[in-house]
Amino acid sequence: MTNRQILLVSRPQGEASVDNFKLVETPLPLLADGQVLVRHHYLSLDPYMRMRMNDAKSYAAPQPLNQVMIGGTVGVVVESKHAGYKPGDTVRGMGGWQEYAIVDATQRGVLQKVDAQRIPLSAYLGAVGMPGVTAWYGLLKLIQPQPGQTVVVSAASGAVGSVVGQLARLRGCRAIGIAGGPDKCHYVTSELGFDACIDYKQHPDEASLAAALKEAAPDGIDGCFENVGGMVLDAVMLQMNAFGRIALCGMISGYDSRPIPMARPQLILTQRMRVEGFIISEHMEVWPEALQELGELVAAGRLKYRESVAQGLENAPQAFLGMLKGRNFGKQLVKLV
Amino acid sequence: MTNRQILLVSRPQGEASVDNFKLVETPLPLLADGQVLVRHHYLSLDPYMRMRMNDAKSYAAPQPLNQVMIGGTVGVVVESKHAGYKPGDTVRGMGGWQEYAIVDATQRGVLQKVDAQRIPLSAYLGAVGMPGVTAWYGLLKLIQPQPGQTVVVSAASGAVGSVVGQLARLRGCRAIGIAGGPDKCHYVTSELGFDACIDYKQHPDEASLAAALKEAAPDGIDGCFENVGGMVLDAVMLQMNAFGRIALCGMISGYDSRPIPMARPQLILTQRMRVEGFIISEHMEVWPEALQELGELVAAGRLKYRESVAQGLENAPQAFLGMLKGRNFGKQLVKLV
Repeated sequence: MTNRQILLVSRPQGEASVDNFKLVETPLPLLADGQVLVRHHYLSLDPYMRMRMNDAKSYAAPQPLNQVMIGGTVGVVVESKHAGYKPGDTVRGMGGWQEYAIVDATQRGVLQKVDAQRIPLSAYLGAVGMPGVTAWYGLLKLIQPQPGQTVVVSAASGAVGSVVGQLARLRGCRAIGIAGGPDKCHYVTSELGFDACIDYKQHPDEASLAAALKEAAPDGIDGCFENVGGMVLDAVMLQMNAFGRIALCGMISGYDSRPIPMARPQLILTQRMRVEGFIISEHMEVWPEALQELGELVAAGRLKYRESVAQGLENAPQAFLGMLKGRNFGKQLVKLV
Repeated sequence: MTNRQILLVSRPQGEASVDNFKLVETPLPLLADGQVLVRHHYLSLDPYMRMRMNDAKSYAAPQPLNQVMIGGTVGVVVESKHAGYKPGDTVRGMGGWQEYAIVDATQRGVLQKVDAQRIPLSAYLGAVGMPGVTAWYGLLKLIQPQPGQTVVVSAASGAVGSVVGQLARLRGCRAIGIAGGPDKCHYVTSELGFDACIDYKQHPDEASLAAALKEAAPDGIDGCFENVGGMVLDAVMLQMNAFGRIALCGMISGYDSRPIPMARPQLILTQRMRVEGFIISEHMEVWPEALQELGELVAAGRLKYRESVAQGLENAPQAFLGMLKGRNFGKQLVKLV
């Protein structure tokens, strides 16, 4: 049997490109005891992967060169030499950018069985997966919004942002999204139920964006879930209330190039803000509680999401690069089966 | 009886100057019931006053024009129409830049009696006053250092910084100071007992300062108590460990001019830092516990401090402006009696 895999073969100089990746075909070895062969149905593409492509000091080890790109996957067990798994089981794992993965299932937590009857399999890579838990943790544990407070989230139509705003609404907050383009903004308000959504592409500078935020958040901003950084964050900071909380989840605007400065750090002092960076894989203790709530909400149709689905492994690099430019609409996936 | 007062008569355009202030003589009215007349012995000069001189959105209302500059004071009761105070009592208050203050002592907390036998009166404006409590809160409540961790504090020879480092040492931490000039650095290590002190004037850029910090803190920095901001903060951030905490107490480097950007905010994300601004007057609940510890340490000679003392009210503006440029050495006071 032959596997197809995408390797990272070089590190980006500035903007990432398809040349950083290479598609290879490799034979699949026979299973050893304790191993499970998984056929991937969906591959998750996420912004954090861009940071792993760099060799810089970061929150995680860089993605090694000439190895399969990391990434979350859902699929079906094809063959098993582990008592806990049998062919046909639907599973979530970190199988990477490849069609099949051989998983050492004796390692606790590397392969989780999921219920694909109640919830679509792909949702376990989005609202009921890492992006959903990221939203849940940053909002509830770091921002800790009170009913009646105002929460702003950037990349609001994306896998993380869409959950942030809906959870904020469910907890009695005013939810303001920031997204790119009228279609995304319309989706964020009319489908996801946010109170307002600002199209950052209509605002060439932070003064303009800050004015739009002031209109959307007349009582000021109490919590900010930041996925973008740069000018968007600078504008939000201008409208933050005293004791505001900023959960720094991503700064995608600076991933490709030189770091983008924060224009007015003194606002952290004058507004007595708390700014906190986090990475969800370091807070495994919250996953069960978060996944339980998220799963129930999705199953009940109270938590909505949208997916952009690329077809075929060979299109993963292009889909990934498009996502970094905001060309996706909702959770970016690659469908492999 | 005649009082002498210093008023703020204009707001700085860029750098503050003596022209922003005016010395006036005014007659002292007779006391009403509940009032106390205090003769000020010392006036406290503090960096936060510079921010109050601006009309900008800040953590406190701007200092009103043509009124007595605010400020902490210690002095002796001269006359009292309040049963709780009698002539000769030593007191601390917020009497402002004037030789006498008439205080409505019926307002709880505006005039605190202090023991000037055990601890020098002036210390109640420094190590056993607002600067000391500021250090105590930022270090113990925000940075929360564990024994063996490394804490860095800028303006290390100053009223706040000197207490931060000594408290960190008392809790088993490695304390690194940043100060301006060899005399201050020598004082910080040899008198205050910090493990190291870096003279920022020897480092023209952040790369150079970051290299010096790396040498002084070979295990990285776990906590930063920031009084300065700008290039100093940028350099510290380069050396922060994962889960580092930054207590933002002041950003004196940007007070006079345009805001100074933070060069690499993405480090907050990649190092999962927590950055928190605070103002000590909003945390009155910690003052009794903090003042108790600080008072005992000063009385026992285990918490050292140094004072720069200007003589006479008329020299307060010049002393204040010098302090903003780091010309003071330790807590800046004006002696009035």
